[in-house]
Amino acid sequence: MNFEFDDRTEELRGRLLDFMAERIYPAEPVFADQARKSGWSHPPVLDDLRAEARRRGLWNLFLPGTYGAGLTNVQYAPLAEITGHSPGLAPAALNCAAPDTGNMEVLAEFGTRAQRERWLEPLLDARIRSAFAMTEPDVASSDATNIATRIERDGDEYVVNGRKWFITGAMNPLCQIFIVMGKTDPDAPAHRQQSQILVPRDTPGISIRRAMHTFGWDDADHGGHAEIDFVDVRVPVENLISTEGSGFAIAQARLGPGRVHHCMRLIGMAERALELMCRRVTGRHAFGGPLADQGVIQDWIAEARVRIEQARLLVLKTAWLMDTAGNRAARTEIQAIKIVVPEMAQWVVDRAIQAHGAAGVSQDTPLARLWASARTIRLADGPDEVHRRSLARRELRRYQPVDG
Amino acid sequence: MNFEFDDRTEELRGRLLDFMAERIYPAEPVFADQARKSGWSHPPVLDDLRAEARRRGLWNLFLPGTYGAGLTNVQYAPLAEITGHSPGLAPAALNCAAPDTGNMEVLAEFGTRAQRERWLEPLLDARIRSAFAMTEPDVASSDATNIATRIERDGDEYVVNGRKWFITGAMNPLCQIFIVMGKTDPDAPAHRQQSQILVPRDTPGISIRRAMHTFGWDDADHGGHAEIDFVDVRVPVENLISTEGSGFAIAQARLGPGRVHHCMRLIGMAERALELMCRRVTGRHAFGGPLADQGVIQDWIAEARVRIEQARLLVLKTAWLMDTAGNRAARTEIQAIKIVVPEMAQWVVDRAIQAHGAAGVSQDTPLARLWASARTIRLADGPDEVHRRSLARRELRRYQPVDG
Amino acid sequence: MNFEFDDRTEELRGRLLDFMAERIYPAEPVFADQARKSGWSHPPVLDDLRAEARRRGLWNLFLPGTYGAGLTNVQYAPLAEITGHSPGLAPAALNCAAPDTGNMEVLAEFGTRAQRERWLEPLLDARIRSAFAMTEPDVASSDATNIATRIERDGDEYVVNGRKWFITGAMNPLCQIFIVMGKTDPDAPAHRQQSQILVPRDTPGISIRRAMHTFGWDDADHGGHAEIDFVDVRVPVENLISTEGSGFAIAQARLGPGRVHHCMRLIGMAERALELMCRRVTGRHAFGGPLADQGVIQDWIAEARVRIEQARLLVLKTAWLMDTAGNRAARTEIQAIKIVVPEMAQWVVDRAIQAHGAAGVSQDTPLARLWASARTIRLADGPDEVHRRSLARRELRRYQPVDG
Amino acid sequence: MNFEFDDRTEELRGRLLDFMAERIYPAEPVFADQARKSGWSHPPVLDDLRAEARRRGLWNLFLPGTYGAGLTNVQYAPLAEITGHSPGLAPAALNCAAPDTGNMEVLAEFGTRAQRERWLEPLLDARIRSAFAMTEPDVASSDATNIATRIERDGDEYVVNGRKWFITGAMNPLCQIFIVMGKTDPDAPAHRQQSQILVPRDTPGISIRRAMHTFGWDDADHGGHAEIDFVDVRVPVENLISTEGSGFAIAQARLGPGRVHHCMRLIGMAERALELMCRRVTGRHAFGGPLADQGVIQDWIAEARVRIEQARLLVLKTAWLMDTAGNRAARTEIQAIKIVVPEMAQWVVDRAIQAHGAAGVSQDTPLARLWASARTIRLADGPDEVHRRSLARRELRRYQPVDG
Repeated sequence: MNFEFDDRTEELRGRLLDFMAERIYPAEPVFADQARKSGWSHPPVLDDLRAEARRRGLWNLFLPGTYGAGLTNVQYAPLAEITGHSPGLAPAALNCAAPDTGNMEVLAEFGTRAQRERWLEPLLDARIRSAFAMTEPDVASSDATNIATRIERDGDEYVVNGRKWFITGAMNPLCQIFIVMGKTDPDAPAHRQQSQILVPRDTPGISIRRAMHTFGWDDADHGGHAEIDFVDVRVPVENLISTEGSGFAIAQARLGPGRVHHCMRLIGMAERALELMCRRVTGRHAFGGPLADQGVIQDWIAEARVRIEQARLLVLKTAWLMDTAGNRAARTEIQAIKIVVPEMAQWVVDRAIQAHGAAGVSQDTPLARLWASARTIRLADGPDEVHRRSLARRELRRYQPVDG
Repeated sequence: MNFEFDDRTEELRGRLLDFMAERIYPAEPVFADQARKSGWSHPPVLDDLRAEARRRGLWNLFLPGTYGAGLTNVQYAPLAEITGHSPGLAPAALNCAAPDTGNMEVLAEFGTRAQRERWLEPLLDARIRSAFAMTEPDVASSDATNIATRIERDGDEYVVNGRKWFITGAMNPLCQIFIVMGKTDPDAPAHRQQSQILVPRDTPGISIRRAMHTFGWDDADHGGHAEIDFVDVRVPVENLISTEGSGFAIAQARLGPGRVHHCMRLIGMAERALELMCRRVTGRHAFGGPLADQGVIQDWIAEARVRIEQARLLVLKTAWLMDTAGNRAARTEIQAIKIVVPEMAQWVVDRAIQAHGAAGVSQDTPLARLWASARTIRLADGPDEVHRRSLARRELRRYQPVDG
Repeated sequence: MNFEFDDRTEELRGRLLDFMAERIYPAEPVFADQARKSGWSHPPVLDDLRAEARRRGLWNLFLPGTYGAGLTNVQYAPLAEITGHSPGLAPAALNCAAPDTGNMEVLAEFGTRAQRERWLEPLLDARIRSAFAMTEPDVASSDATNIATRIERDGDEYVVNGRKWFITGAMNPLCQIFIVMGKTDPDAPAHRQQSQILVPRDTPGISIRRAMHTFGWDDADHGGHAEIDFVDVRVPVENLISTEGSGFAIAQARLGPGRVHHCMRLIGMAERALELMCRRVTGRHAFGGPLADQGVIQDWIAEARVRIEQARLLVLKTAWLMDTAGNRAARTEIQAIKIVVPEMAQWVVDRAIQAHGAAGVSQDTPLARLWASARTIRLADGPDEVHRRSLARRELRRYQPVDG
Repeated sequence: MNFEFDDRTEELRGRLLDFMAERIYPAEPVFADQARKSGWSHPPVLDDLRAEARRRGLWNLFLPGTYGAGLTNVQYAPLAEITGHSPGLAPAALNCAAPDTGNMEVLAEFGTRAQRERWLEPLLDARIRSAFAMTEPDVASSDATNIATRIERDGDEYVVNGRKWFITGAMNPLCQIFIVMGKTDPDAPAHRQQSQILVPRDTPGISIRRAMHTFGWDDADHGGHAEIDFVDVRVPVENLISTEGSGFAIAQARLGPGRVHHCMRLIGMAERALELMCRRVTGRHAFGGPLADQGVIQDWIAEARVRIEQARLLVLKTAWLMDTAGNRAARTEIQAIKIVVPEMAQWVVDRAIQAHGAAGVSQDTPLARLWASARTIRLADGPDEVHRRSLARRELRRYQPVDG
């Protein structure tokens, strides 16, 4: 049992912390300022940051294998945490932002050579962006069998029909490729009905209906969240990822790493919020002393610290388990971190907001948006309750009943 | 002991429920649509609703005495709850929206005849709007002794200097008058240092610096929340409300009714959220049945119902106590509802969001904005913790210690 | 709307508060001391207290109608709260302790003249005690259809067979009569299968197997909680209460008043715990000042106060609704108080324990036993979850679904 | 980073799990039965279990160095967890039960050769038992500066005067030696006032006043919890442990390992409770299916699992940090586990109780007593709040303030 990071991790952590201090934090106000004028495109400062990250060897760190940095999950996890300190800039600057990360993983693992050349390579270079079109407005998408979008074969083409929403990144005009999840065979067994297919943005029949909001934000600086209609959208059969019926399995494959990334970033966000809270309460005075002297605020700080520490260890163990025993063996842990971490981060950020008073809900701190982000993740890829239910059922299967 | 509403209340409740059904709910999408184009001004449909409310005898219901409807707190409270079902429209349509309500109360109770003619009458007619400028960015304003804005006498004028923020309604160009809280005598005893003064919007030296956001929204449809600089702003001495040093007492006087109004609206908001949640879960299916069959969701619904019922009774008792024993006798209860109700409403709305999935955080339901509203009220006129601390100290004074 | 108690209630409250101060509190240590030697019988000081309570006109206050004091629920409720300040003595001293209260209500409402003469009258005089035998060890008794005890007619007799446990009061040798719930017709519709029957303690075939404990206590001073076997126990057909198949309805009838009594006593217990906490923290010092100065403790006190106030209002409204609209109309409220009040009381007592340190879990304060009592009530007549589920389902039926 | 146990740990875990299955669990009812007749002495079955544990090489596993098994903290921790599955038997059977463990550690680390021969050796052989007398009834002992017991030098003797309570194990007549904490120099700096001294049970001037209860238990099977008076109790100066003024430092030294032991046992207790809950709900039926099908119960199970996993990782990391960087470097973690683990265990056990209905609070499952144990540990060596406050202050010192 050993809780130390290995040398490569420590080296990269140091390099990344330097990059954060020297380039990312100073760029935060620039990014915010540019975002007001850049519409659905990314603020241009991001291009500079990307060039610099690449120069510093901080590029595609998320991706195992030869296409990326080749790190294990447990090596990348602490780096993802650091990017969470500035979640609006750092992941994008390092080309490690969702949903591109998951899409690149899928292409690297399941894509044909042609698919990889056509889409993976420009994504690895950040020349284009991508989206993952799964969630639908008309059904409870947390139950994948509810998905109504059809992908029907017609000769050498597949025809896609359906409506998707909350398609993150898709408002960005640079977002050139959508991976669409839909049913090729609604009569197959539940988890063999779905397929995933590559649909270029400019394919006829695609229409972006509108931008969805999360709380009061449109998240334009990150390509927003689109509602998209697919009406008789035709793509060549070569665009199918893997085989018909493998859509659910591919979706599962991206889940594990994606959750580790998300969760470690959330831990970084929680650390940022805790730091902001501590600084605020030591500097702000009321009723005869700094807020930091108030017992209730100390109580929040202690609670925040112990929750963060526990959550981090659970994510790191999950990453280690994925590395050493495989994603399937880590199923319970992968669910557990989805249950635990967003709620923890939301709680910590909420307390930081409270400690900031009105400033906490305003645009003057990153807290309100961090909160909305953590809150929304509790619904993304299924609400907490779906994961809790599933984890509990697996737990229950371990025991025989007693009592009649 | 009698938990029935009296006849006048029941009659007004019926009339108001009809108005909600016939005019307010149908106007909600119109209001939202107009809001996209009306900038900081109110959406024009509000003018029609106001005329209709007035015609139906649903006007200025909040105001006791001859200027208003003359209702007691316990009579008005259930009406305020109903307006909370559509908090963006109904209070404004009935001329019962904060901060105008508190400002009208102050003018009616403490204003000179001239002040009432000049400002109260157009407010009662909804010809102008008003703001209350108390909170400051640079200090913990929950401790009123921290307020740094100065109101200094200079001959026949007072000179106001300071910076205020989160001045609700002040972005609206119709907002013609600010009641500004500041210190006339920083050396007086703590609660005699402050005064309140009427400052017309067009007085030289006033500059609106920017609009503050709450969780991504600018609340432009309700006049936003302004940050305002007052630099050598001069108003005649006749603009002072009551006497020098009475600012804190006037602020206290508006607190009681204001909290009953806010809290009853929050209860109405919670009821709306609960209704939306119930409708959603009965109509949405996953994992073989409607969401309504899931035990965890039933648990939320039960919890929501019992929290709402308890909170409502506490607010009604507070209103009754204010009516029968006075605001001072109701101090503990006035604090208690501030502690209890916003948190309850936030919790109910949060569960309704969770039950809606992605739709819950989006612009497609009122839930996300209701949530932000409830959350922000937990900071308005002092964070929860200030009120909890104060209530506890009063409780502790009731007992003698034991043990050495 | 009127939150005042009426004159009769106020007069009785005054009289009861005097009795508590003059006789009950001074008797607490005597009771505790005698309890160590009185086995399963009641400590003898209770006889003196009963005589005195009767003399003071504080006798059978719980019972409406001519057999008792004739109070309404809303009149009795605040008196029950006061008895909760000393829950081990005061209810028993006033002949207002469960389960005798419910049994007397059932006999008064459903008993024949002969049953009333034989059992109700000595109970009203506290000459004997009674028990209600419903819960069974082998089934989830919260679902009444699970009850396995059989009551079979055989000529002029009914034959009872089954096992019951947690039969409160039944270890007391003065407990002379059991009301037993069992099935007379397992094939009838679910709520017509059960009947209730009077079974004298000395009937052949009854054996008391053992005393059940709750969190380490055997509650011997209140007759304990027995596990009882009924093997071919024969009683005359005249012992049936009401008619065959009415057992469920009779059980429902006793629920409403019983819950108001229990809940008001719990509120009294919470008030006692809060008082003990306040006295303790003002008198105990650590880290440079009284514990009362610590923010976290103040936070508990505020939370306790606002929870108690809300809960009390909900119980009073429930009592009022039962009085004015009937128990059936108050179904939701009767469930709501079962959900809310025990949990509230448990929470307040738990914080009082924490504020007392080791003393809080010891025999030196009443807190640990109050806690166990509140915790156990969360399971008595069905765990919280059963009531939450049922309340939620009624709530859901109020709404039509939206969304397909 | 590596989350695997090493070979020695795995080997011992296997051996211990066998011992639990073959000897401990079967002995539980025997122990309970004997306990009813063995007064304050240990039930005799424990002697057999000890002999067997020793034979199997499962003896004094807690003790590092040559006196014990020589395990590191991270090696012993998972073994302590396993003993928590049967916390009433397994720790005592392995001679790994508090407070003997802490006392043996102190003697091994700070004792003179004579002290070790006289007291450590019989303790290592389980021939005698020991107690640690620190907590006092009259002061808030969580603030060590409050301790009032005096240890005054008089020639070749120290004279001890004071009252202690909740002295665990001291009712057991085999408990032959007390380590008493008291002040040798009340005028020294705060943390140099205290000393620890060995006081044999039979020294004149010691009187055991009474047994303290925790909830309704006297814990006689583990030597109970005594209140003890020390009146002019004289012991030779050689009985002092280490030097005058080192009492606080010695107390600190035992804290770290003690908390790891306690916390891992609590995790074992939580696992036992979760297992009991799962078995119960799969076997018990209500409302048409097993309780395990109810969403709320699944929610508890998921929550229990994720809380246990997180807590365990935090304790293991703490143990590893103590092993690799020392107790002082692990201060925050040592506090963190004290804050986190007892509350977690209490929560899990409480849910298991709820799932068991009335059986859960009774003597028929170990749950009620496990609950009382977890609850009491939240007060032992300082209430949660003291540790939260201290951890928060250390956290706050890491940051510089912002804002004026």
